Amino acid sequence: MELCSCYLFKDLTEDQKSKVVSVIKEFSIDSGQRIFTEGDEALTIYILKEGAVELMTIVEKDFELPVAILRNPGDCFGTPALLKPHVHSLTARCVEKSRLLTIKQSDLQEQIAKDPLLGCIIMTNLAAHFLGRLKESRKELKVHFKTLLRHTWS
Amino acid sequence: MELCSCYLFKDLTEDQKSKVVSVIKEFSIDSGQRIFTEGDEALTIYILKEGAVELMTIVEKDFELPVAILRNPGDCFGTPALLKPHVHSLTARCVEKSRLLTIKQSDLQEQIAKDPLLGCIIMTNLAAHFLGRLKESRKELKVHFKTLLRHTWS
Repeated sequence: MELCSCYLFKDLTEDQKSKVVSVIKEFSIDSGQRIFTEGDEALTIYILKEGAVELMTIVEKDFELPVAILRNPGDCFGTPALLKPHVHSLTARCVEKSRLLTIKQSDLQEQIAKDPLLGCIIMTNLAAHFLGRLKESRKELKVHFKTLLRHTWS
Repeated sequence: MELCSCYLFKDLTEDQKSKVVSVIKEFSIDSGQRIFTEGDEALTIYILKEGAVELMTIVEKDFELPVAILRNPGDCFGTPALLKPHVHSLTARCVEKSRLLTIKQSDLQEQIAKDPLLGCIIMTNLAAHFLGRLKESRKELKVHFKTLLRHTWS
């Protein structure tokens, strides 16, 4: 898996990529295992190497709504670890035996302290990703709104 | 207005703040004036100094849905200017005679090229802001979802 297949690490130089690679760890996880839960402290970001991970959001106690299934090598999650107050905004559950790469936020922060441009690029990529997700979420809201309007007017 | 009342410029040093201040311009705008339209090329970020600005999103041709009204000095908008492909994700319209501060993306980028840590802090603030908005948007979707569930089950 190429590191640049993860959106966070797009546009890095070879030197910057090797700084990131130096703090990556890898582990296997079985299907059905919960990786973290919405509201948990977020200290690590995760990158899918192989397998599948489902992201969910808590709607009500004991009821979680699926948000996405990640299947592409390089898909990453747990990125609120990179931002204060370091709290997971979603729940992640492994839905197929998977290999995951992990990066501890504190380890990445050490690299960024030595190379602020590395941090600037990663944070720009993260902001662009969240803006994209926000636009998608607004699009969904518009669909609901239009449905509502049709019901009100019909 | 203090620069740090704008979320983008939180946690900057005095030296970094003066770099930002050096590229700020200011202008007045009348109520009813459109500042930019969703889909327009985004080259400038805007900070409210006084007055009020409404943000809207296009639902259908000739129909825009209000997303927020900004009234607090330091509120900023047009931030997609900081990210490729530099396209406004919302429409902004002045709803009271206002004073606005503007920062050209290219001018800020020049400062960031000289001080990547400045860029890292601004982009971290931007990512944190978009994550916050994304969580709010998801919360709204959950409300719609719960309403839908109640209608389906009742």
